[in-house]
Amino acid sequence: MNEHAFRSAAADAADRLADHWRSLAACELPVVPPGPPGTTLGVLPETAPERGEDLTDILDDTWRTIVPQLVHWQHPNFLGYFPAGNSPASVLAELVTAGLGVQGMMWSTSPAATELEQRVCDWLARALGLPARFTHASGRGGGVIQDSASSAALAAVAAALDRASGGRWREHGTEGRLRVYCTDQANHSVRKVVRVAGVGAPVLVPTVPGTHSMDPAALAGRLDADRAAGLVPAAVVATVGTTATCAIDPVPRIGAVCRDRGVWLHVDAAYAGSAALCPELRVADAEPDLADSYAVNAHKWMRTGIPCDILWVADRGELTGALGATSSYLRNDATDSGQVVDFKDWQLPLGRPMRALKLWYVLRAHGLEGLREVIRHDIRLAGLLASLVEREPGFRLVAHRLGLVVLRAETDEMTREVTRRLTGRPGVLCTPAVVDGRPVLRAALGSAYADETTVRRVWDTVRACAPPSP
Amino acid sequence: MNEHAFRSAAADAADRLADHWRSLAACELPVVPPGPPGTTLGVLPETAPERGEDLTDILDDTWRTIVPQLVHWQHPNFLGYFPAGNSPASVLAELVTAGLGVQGMMWSTSPAATELEQRVCDWLARALGLPARFTHASGRGGGVIQDSASSAALAAVAAALDRASGGRWREHGTEGRLRVYCTDQANHSVRKVVRVAGVGAPVLVPTVPGTHSMDPAALAGRLDADRAAGLVPAAVVATVGTTATCAIDPVPRIGAVCRDRGVWLHVDAAYAGSAALCPELRVADAEPDLADSYAVNAHKWMRTGIPCDILWVADRGELTGALGATSSYLRNDATDSGQVVDFKDWQLPLGRPMRALKLWYVLRAHGLEGLREVIRHDIRLAGLLASLVEREPGFRLVAHRLGLVVLRAETDEMTREVTRRLTGRPGVLCTPAVVDGRPVLRAALGSAYADETTVRRVWDTVRACAPPSP
Repeated sequence: MNEHAFRSAAADAADRLADHWRSLAACELPVVPPGPPGTTLGVLPETAPERGEDLTDILDDTWRTIVPQLVHWQHPNFLGYFPAGNSPASVLAELVTAGLGVQGMMWSTSPAATELEQRVCDWLARALGLPARFTHASGRGGGVIQDSASSAALAAVAAALDRASGGRWREHGTEGRLRVYCTDQANHSVRKVVRVAGVGAPVLVPTVPGTHSMDPAALAGRLDADRAAGLVPAAVVATVGTTATCAIDPVPRIGAVCRDRGVWLHVDAAYAGSAALCPELRVADAEPDLADSYAVNAHKWMRTGIPCDILWVADRGELTGALGATSSYLRNDATDSGQVVDFKDWQLPLGRPMRALKLWYVLRAHGLEGLREVIRHDIRLAGLLASLVEREPGFRLVAHRLGLVVLRAETDEMTREVTRRLTGRPGVLCTPAVVDGRPVLRAALGSAYADETTVRRVWDTVRACAPPSP
Repeated sequence: MNEHAFRSAAADAADRLADHWRSLAACELPVVPPGPPGTTLGVLPETAPERGEDLTDILDDTWRTIVPQLVHWQHPNFLGYFPAGNSPASVLAELVTAGLGVQGMMWSTSPAATELEQRVCDWLARALGLPARFTHASGRGGGVIQDSASSAALAAVAAALDRASGGRWREHGTEGRLRVYCTDQANHSVRKVVRVAGVGAPVLVPTVPGTHSMDPAALAGRLDADRAAGLVPAAVVATVGTTATCAIDPVPRIGAVCRDRGVWLHVDAAYAGSAALCPELRVADAEPDLADSYAVNAHKWMRTGIPCDILWVADRGELTGALGATSSYLRNDATDSGQVVDFKDWQLPLGRPMRALKLWYVLRAHGLEGLREVIRHDIRLAGLLASLVEREPGFRLVAHRLGLVVLRAETDEMTREVTRRLTGRPGVLCTPAVVDGRPVLRAALGSAYADETTVRRVWDTVRACAPPSP
């Protein structure tokens, strides 16, 4: 290794990144790049080089070839999808994590990586007001960092299938009778998880009319009917903060239905879960006291870079019973002692990087007060945007909760036209979606560089896309 | 953001890492840390701080609290497990990837992230001598970066179940009749993947006596018998480089058996796959011409930090048919045009970081010649270690292939005693395992800092742990 080359390239890269962030903050770059499909492929050589190249040349090419063709998720005018959180502390942690290069599959393969993860998951559980049984300190439950809400849900569903089958699932699979339940508002990923788990399609539970939230009575009826029909209800996936409208399934009432029937309740709070950092934003419907597992994407609204999802379980034995396994080459004294946590048994993959350092850096660099202020700031901006929509003739506010604002034009055709025109404007990104069968536009706040000025500018761009009233 | 604080903290972190690598190379640190369970937990506060802290203080704490309690996977005397690859180029890439902070779930959410991934997967397919149909350039197959060989296998198994069920799996799950096959030498993770996929336990196919490689005739017999019994064989997982002994399942003959029966063949070449970078190391038994999917962990033997596994498929439509799905908020013109690749449909999770930058940096910084030299160097060192074992009275060479050396003492009790004593020596790490029912020690080369001197020192430590002959 050329050590000097690394030190100077890393300092160089840090400078380029800081300059990049400044240019994003100043809106000097478009959100959406100009090139059609094939633009980047067209300039990359068809084969890998035979001989090594200088790190500086590779950095130059990154800024010449890659950066201009990215969608800039950190841009203040990026309001598409839910945000991809980031911060200097998170970036610094990725540098250190990569540099230390350890693999934390078991306690014995890097004790500090495991214990740091236990501790930061406990920190966050307390900061979010989660029940104590979700902490490692309780001796019963605990948190684990996954790469995504999908992987978290898959782990939870696996544990649920194991429980519902009385352990038979481990040897015999799903056998066609196990069922998982959610609403049609659950994230895209829930359906994929249930499919990949070998269950097929989830059973869709009706929402309460006029809302986008699961109907607990309908759930109870469906669970009982399915059980009477010889099926085996295994898990319900409730959402706190749906993608389309940030709706909240009534977790306590769903939990009571599940508890009475021994069905696993997994709560997908990928986006909205972070809001619970602020006590004034906690809502009774989101309280997971009766949940078996609960997941939040720190990489959405906690200034932490992707990937960083935290999955908490109330009973770690149920999770490791489903996902645990060993081989002779993984046996070690620490595991045999029963005194340690081996996170390989809390997730699908065997190997894993030291995942906790990033969350540790972010929580310490921002402090809980700092992260609360991030969320309050974004909510204030969303409130501003919502008020601008409401005041604008020709637009309607469809939903507004936390940092999400959903809007439409007067008619569906006009909404589609706004979307079409907006797509041609690379300076702003909102996401088209469909709510109650009607086209809408979603705008989610989250960029560290957004402020009142950028929100007003985004809104000026959107309203300028409105066609004349019919 | 305090931009100046980031620039200076990143330069500081790079300096600390370069110093850390130098101290690893000089063997100034033990491989295994001294603290018992709870050491790190004991010094971390029980709650997150309310107020933000300086990045420099966090870096100080990292080196004070975390680094001394890590197992150092990059240490030259670390021979446990398969290596966790790393290099300055890989670390630099993680810094840049984190700093750019984009989410590459679809082409439209960051075109360059997607196209760069297509290109580097093609680069690597060619460099490994994989069939052209595994490249994106073929228009039919292609590669995708996953976090682990487990996730790669899960994606492949999902596609296999979909194919074997004629698409019925998507709605109805595994239904208790679909089967997946491997040997008892397949990695730990394969069993977990098959379980999590809702199939239950894999069917274990016998190995050829005297080897640890799958018996293709036994496989054919088992597939036919299962089909005759009304079961539905869906996938075979063959291994190129098993964990215990680096055995190679005869992929071409297994492929012929699978092809004749329409069964999906997934090749798990997590460790040994990288060796195919060197033409002289390619072996006929590992050729995946008849495979449907093939996975290599660049994060094992390609100087690339974890996570970085590449999964190639021969028919991308089969993969995206199983894992693809959409929602109104994910629709976009580029996807609708059919001209782009959306990697969310090639994996379980919805979101994903820009995964390709790291592999691009590593391939360019080292060049293919540089990576070949890494592998040849490790193989030379493994050859040295194997020769030392063979010359040593009281020790036996159990297996030796590529960078892996497996050994035992004269009797099982003596091997267990060597293992016990070696566990008490924090300066060296080898892994105990069981081969053919007998305890062994595994040593896998891979540290960038290992050389003849470190190998001889490791061996001196191991042999010094031998008890007197009975």
